[in-house]
Order: sequence, then structure tokens, then C-alpha cells
Amino acid sequence: MKQYEFGIVGLGVMGRNLLFNMADHGYAVAGLDLDQDKVNALHTEATDKQDVQGKTSANEFVGLLKSPRAILLLVPAGKPVDGAIASLTPFLEKGDIIVDGGNSYFTDTERRFKELEEKGIHFFGMGISGGEEGARFGPSMMPGGDPAAYERLRPVFEAIAAKVNGEPCVTYMGTGSAGHYVKMVHNGIEYGIMQLISEMYDLLKRGLNYSDDQLQQTFESWNEGELKSFLLEITGIVLKKVDDETGNRLVNMILDVARAKGTGKWTSQNAMDIQAAIPVIDTAVAMRDLSKYKEERVKAAEKLVWNNTENDTDAHGGLIEHIKKAYHFAVLTIYAQGMAQLQLASKEYGYGLKLADIAKIWRGGCIIRSTTLEDLMQAYLKDPELPNLMLDDVIAGKLVNTQEGARFSVKFAVDKGIPAPALMSALGYFDAYRSARLATNIIQAQRDYFGAHTYERTDKEGKFHTQWD
Amino acid sequence: MKQYEFGIVGLGVMGRNLLFNMADHGYAVAGLDLDQDKVNALHTEATDKQDVQGKTSANEFVGLLKSPRAILLLVPAGKPVDGAIASLTPFLEKGDIIVDGGNSYFTDTERRFKELEEKGIHFFGMGISGGEEGARFGPSMMPGGDPAAYERLRPVFEAIAAKVNGEPCVTYMGTGSAGHYVKMVHNGIEYGIMQLISEMYDLLKRGLNYSDDQLQQTFESWNEGELKSFLLEITGIVLKKVDDETGNRLVNMILDVARAKGTGKWTSQNAMDIQAAIPVIDTAVAMRDLSKYKEERVKAAEKLVWNNTENDTDAHGGLIEHIKKAYHFAVLTIYAQGMAQLQLASKEYGYGLKLADIAKIWRGGCIIRSTTLEDLMQAYLKDPELPNLMLDDVIAGKLVNTQEGARFSVKFAVDKGIPAPALMSALGYFDAYRSARLATNIIQAQRDYFGAHTYERTDKEGKFHTQWD
Repeated sequence: MKQYEFGIVGLGVMGRNLLFNMADHGYAVAGLDLDQDKVNALHTEATDKQDVQGKTSANEFVGLLKSPRAILLLVPAGKPVDGAIASLTPFLEKGDIIVDGGNSYFTDTERRFKELEEKGIHFFGMGISGGEEGARFGPSMMPGGDPAAYERLRPVFEAIAAKVNGEPCVTYMGTGSAGHYVKMVHNGIEYGIMQLISEMYDLLKRGLNYSDDQLQQTFESWNEGELKSFLLEITGIVLKKVDDETGNRLVNMILDVARAKGTGKWTSQNAMDIQAAIPVIDTAVAMRDLSKYKEERVKAAEKLVWNNTENDTDAHGGLIEHIKKAYHFAVLTIYAQGMAQLQLASKEYGYGLKLADIAKIWRGGCIIRSTTLEDLMQAYLKDPELPNLMLDDVIAGKLVNTQEGARFSVKFAVDKGIPAPALMSALGYFDAYRSARLATNIIQAQRDYFGAHTYERTDKEGKFHTQWD
Repeated sequence: MKQYEFGIVGLGVMGRNLLFNMADHGYAVAGLDLDQDKVNALHTEATDKQDVQGKTSANEFVGLLKSPRAILLLVPAGKPVDGAIASLTPFLEKGDIIVDGGNSYFTDTERRFKELEEKGIHFFGMGISGGEEGARFGPSMMPGGDPAAYERLRPVFEAIAAKVNGEPCVTYMGTGSAGHYVKMVHNGIEYGIMQLISEMYDLLKRGLNYSDDQLQQTFESWNEGELKSFLLEITGIVLKKVDDETGNRLVNMILDVARAKGTGKWTSQNAMDIQAAIPVIDTAVAMRDLSKYKEERVKAAEKLVWNNTENDTDAHGGLIEHIKKAYHFAVLTIYAQGMAQLQLASKEYGYGLKLADIAKIWRGGCIIRSTTLEDLMQAYLKDPELPNLMLDDVIAGKLVNTQEGARFSVKFAVDKGIPAPALMSALGYFDAYRSARLATNIIQAQRDYFGAHTYERTDKEGKFHTQWD
């Protein structure tokens, strides 16, 4: 009987696209979905050159696969993942591999890893970024699990991944839930950059009265050179699109209420648990939440008025260059926060992450891919233990050179009354991080005053308590 | 045999102080602690007028108490609470009451509430604020649980609570874990205000080169009039204290690394779960975390240099008044964020919170007590369902009048390179909240582009997806 190299469970858009991606690279791939229509669609869509086979029965599906079996789940995070695992395991053998390719929370992945380990089945949590398009033609993939078992997956994953300079955007991340953790932080960075882009757009639109054309052209031009990134690229495309019904640019017809699937929130919540400071990402999460309260905002706009006394929008000229530099500056701080969180998490959870590898595989295929990631990769190749990117000489140099733009842009936003909380947070983070001495001594003194929580001193070791009054 | 009105478990500083507070108000109180020394100390410290009795056996302790029994636990949050409950329940009867007076996480309280409900025992989670001093002479207390059972506790709690205009700083908060939830948010607000005060101190010290005396006098003077608050008061006291060893002000000898017990973190993490936007509190949590990385900060100070081109520290004069207004402005936004979270949580968890009551009992005894809470109480008496304080006319008026100070101070911090992330976040929050239209449409367009997450439109109902390129 014919043996299939790889199995995919869940033939929704992501699963189907990854399946055809594998098939395009010459692999025989079997698919499983309980929905007969999706299985039929698979057969209909497949070309003669694609060696694929769909099933609705787990037993039959597993029977098709070459041993040790490699099965990738593309089902919604949560109970469906546990359900899929439960339906497969009766038919699996020791040494088989299940890969969860969804956005599962990393503690769920850790639990599943241990549960399946006891059964002798290798479990991988793998973040996949790039959306539907990426899945079909080259995603960035972040697999974590048993390093030896990864060898069975490697050829297929390297074949289907996005490539940068011929190098695949996939590599082994680390043990246990490392893959899903890295993907979670990827998404946190994504939240931060998206919030930042929206603020830059607002500064240009409300602050400098840019026309739709000017807005589009600005983001298109920013995407040339060292700022080049997927998120800037699609911002230009999005700003160009005309609404068929109204003739207006489509973005102008979109409601200003953000939805979220929770991965940004998880990033912030876990950062607080491991005491990583990622205030720009936290701010992006809070701002999506705040956008929900549209009715309140409409009322607040009537009550909370700011009469900007500066009428000249760009008296000194060159504001647009400042704003561009502000964007560059803040993006660097967002990457710095996310990578610092990964560095801490690697110690906390024993992942053994290699940050240069992470930067490397993010250079292509994923949502946060950008030219900047080359600098990140170099920084971590130079010093794999670098606690914060802002201490790397190249990154530090770029921050120092762009900070004036950030300062100028914050002041402009403040004068205009335009919200720029992510940009502000980036600058606040930068100025706090470069403070050899913070004013945190006051907080420690207050805590000792009212709660006898003790404090440390600058001149000697120990914990001290004072009767303050 | 003599019957005691109230029982206290855990005779550490907090438990002992609350016990003596009750005894001072004429109540006969029994104490339980496994440590014989603490029980002995209780008997030694008690005056003739204080009717108190200590035990090391749960059985004997429970036997002393008047039925239905009222027992307040003052043991560390976590397993010790479960341990104390388990040691007591074999000796309790239906209708007895256990109150957890520690900083337990509200989901633990919810679980215990249900577990004890099945046994017919009333469980209360009660936040207590005011530190050791408050416990002894009048704390603010936030009890949540069964409203009928609260009548058994009310006389004692009202007797020992702090008083404002003769009214006790305690009242029934709501069902289940309401009391611990309210206390959690109280602490989140506390984190926000403490971070803010430290930033104001930094602006005065590093920005305006204020001397130790000037710093002390400034905070003392701010504590007069409408800004009056416990945290400003103790800041003045703390700034005055001289270090015996060095002759320097003690605050200057304190290490700038903040510690935290986690309640601020919980506030932010849960806010993200219920989609309450509390970015200033989030920032305060992140800044405590960032303060930990002292060695990195010392290195960063060398690399990330900002040469401030403005040499005149206060060219236009009056900066100090701007900074004072900035403090006022930002404190209002912090209260607004915390109270908005409570309003949302009340719906989410069915607590039935009355926000006017909460503002009322926070006016005295607790760490965030302040004159401002009178305005809060009035706002919620006027509109109990007010979703955000910034929509109240009085608060809105104060924000509008102080915003210029906030804007000025942010620009000053930015020019000087002094971190003011909480202040910035307050202003960013304000400007976002008063934006009838945010730039969030860009985020929704991006999400739809790369993830087919759909968007809503301004001109019609429904969810839409676009093929953008």
C-alpha cells in the first residue's frame, strides 16, 4: 500500500494551503478532516502533479502514513487540539510525531508535551506565521519539542518554508513549548508595530492633514530602504484600496474598533509573570481594548476638549522626516522588548533558545519580517546572551541617531492632542532603560513606610527597614 | 464558659493589630496561632481593659467563639489560607463565617467561596488596606461574600474601621470574590500613583535640579488643598528623613530597584482578560520590572546618550505649576482606569459593585485615600453606571483644566531625556479616549489583509473581508 510522507489534520484554509505547499515540493501528503466536503474539495483542487489523499477517518488516515508518522494539526487552539490528539493516539505507535501548528497557549503545549511523552509520542508546538498566503507559498515556522525527533520533520519543513538568501525560515527553537512561546512573542511584537503604524498614520492624517494620496505614498516610500517590512508594505497597499461602493478609500470606511485573538494579551500577561518589561506591547494591547469603547469616545470627544494653540502644522519643516525617524526608533524598542522577553523566558523555562536563529527565521515569511531583523541576527551572533538589543552597538547607534525624531514627534502629538501612546511608551522605556539611576528609590521608601516591605541600599548589602516618622 | 465575639487566625503584625483594634472597641477577641511565642506575646501585650485570649489549638480556639462564629484569617495568601480553612472546618457549624483578610487572588477566593458554601459555611474575601498602622487604629476594609451573613460582621468591622466624617471606611462590596477584586484594583491604582510620584520627583530633581529641601517642601505643599492624599503625605515625610550613618537624606541611599508582591501585576493581567484599558497601571508594573535590570541600565547610560540642547531649565518660569497640574491630571486618569475596570468586572463576574460605596470607603484608612475620592463618590452617586470617570462633568472639567500642565511636563521630560512613562501613558490614554475616531481602522485593515480576520464598516452592519491586492 502507498505510504504518505506527511499527514495534516484540519483541512481549513491553513491546513489545505500547507498541504498543497508540501505537495508542490514533491511530498505525498495525507489529510484528515471530519467534514467530507473539505476532503472532497482537497481532491478536486489537487492537480495531477500533487500526490495527496484525504480521509474522514482517523484510523484510515493514520494507516496511510509512513512510519515514524509525522502529523501536523491545523485546528483551532483549545479543546479542538486535545480532541484531535485523542482521536489520533489510539492508532499511533511509539516514535510517531504530532505537531500542533495552531496558536496554542504555551502552557497547554507544555502539558500536551508531557502527556504524550509518557506515551512515547513526540509532541511539537509550532508557531506558523505568514497567514494564508504564507502557508501556501512559504511561511515562517517556529517548531519546539524533542530535538532528535525534529530530524524527521526537518526536510519537509525546510522545503515548504519561506527562503531568505536561499536559507529556510524554519529551524528548531527549543524544548517543550518553546515554539509556541516564540510565536506568542512574535505576535506581541506584531501588536506593537501595528499600533505604532496606526499612530504614525494618525500623526500624518490629523496632525499634518495629509491627503489619502500622501498617506499612501508616505508608507510606500518608508518601505524602501532600511525600514522595509511586510507591515509597512501592506499598509501602503491597504491605503491604496478604493471602496467599490462609495468610491472613498476603503480604510476610511472601516470602523475604528480593533478585534484581537489574544496572543498579544498572552505576551503581556506572561511578560508580567517573568518580570520582562514590554511596555510598548502592553500599550498596544490596552489600545485595542480602548478602541472597543467607541460610544464612550464619541461622548468624550465633546467633553474633553483641547484647543491646540499652534496653528502652523509644520512651522519648522522637516516634520515628516522626524516622524519617519520616530517610527524607526520605536520599532527598534519593540523588537528589543520582545527579544528581551525571549531571553528571560529561555532561562525561566529552560528552552535553550538561540536568539540569532529566531531573528534569522523571522526575516522571511512571517508578519514581522523586516530588514531590521538582519541587524538583530548580527547582534545575537555577536553576543548570544545579550540581555537587551539596546546594548548592541549597531542598534544603540540607530537609536541614538533616531531619538531626536521620536522626541520631536512626541512633542508634536502632545501639542496636537493626537494620541501616540505606543510611541510615547517607546521613548519612556528608552529613557528609563538608559537611566543608571531611576527614581524607584521613592517607591521603595514608600513601600517600606506603609507596608514595612524593606529596601536595599546603594552602599551596602542587606535588607533594611526604617521607622520613618 | 466565656464566649468571645470574634476570632482571629494568624497573630503576625496584621492579625495582632486588628485583634487589639477590636479589643479597644470593647470586643472580646480570641486569637489562634500555631506559634506559642506569638500567643504568649498576645497575652503579655494586652492591657487589663483588653479582653483577649490566645490559643495554639484550632479546636480550643473555635470552642471559645460565640455562635454563629466569626473568624478572620490573617495568614499569607496561597496555601496557608487553604491550610487554615482546613484546620478550622472540622470544628465549625453551619452558619459560621470565615473571612480571609489577606491579599488572595480573587479566583482563589471564588473557589473557596464555593467550596465552603457547600458545607454551609459563609466565606468572605476581604481586602484590608492601611498597612500595620491602619490595622491597629483604623483600616479601610473591602468585604465581599454573602450579604445576609455580613450583618454578623458589620458591627465589629464598622467599629474598627477608619472614619471619615464619622462614617466607617467599610461596607459590603458584593458577592463571591468582590472584596478581593476591589482590593486588587485598589493596589493597581496604588502602583500607578506611586510610579507617577516617582516620575514627578525625577522631573524636579534631575530636570529642575531641585535640592533635597526643595523636593521635600514641594511634596509637602502639594499635600495641601485638593491634591491632599496619603501617598503625597508620606512622600514628604520620606524625603525629610536623614540617614543616621551618612548624614545624607535616606532616600538618596536607597537602591533604585523596586520589589513587588504581585497585586499590581494581577490587576493588569485581569484587565487584559476583561478588556479594560488601564495603560498607566500596566506601565507602573512594567517600570517596576524594568528597575530590576540595574546592571543593564548602568551600561545603557553609557551607550544611549541624549545631549539635551536646551540649557535653560525653566526658561519660561512656572514649570513647577505645570508639573503639579500634570500630577493632578495623571492621578485622575489612574483613578478613572481603575474604576472603569471595576465597573466592567462587576458585570463580568456579577459582583453588583456600587462604585460610590467603593470611593466612599477609600476616603480613609487605605493607601490611596485622597481628597479626590470625594469627587469620585459624587460622580458615582450621580450616575452609578458611569462607565468612565472622565465622562463625569466635574472630573472632565478638572482634566481639561490640568491637561496643559500634563502636555507641558511631557514635553519637558522629553527634552530633558527624563523618563515619564506613566505621565505619558496618562496623556496618551486621555487623547485616545477623547478621539471619536481613532486610527484603529488601519489595524483592522492590516488584520484583514494578512489573516482574513474581517472588519466592520462605519456605514453599515456586518463583517466584511476584502481581497486587498
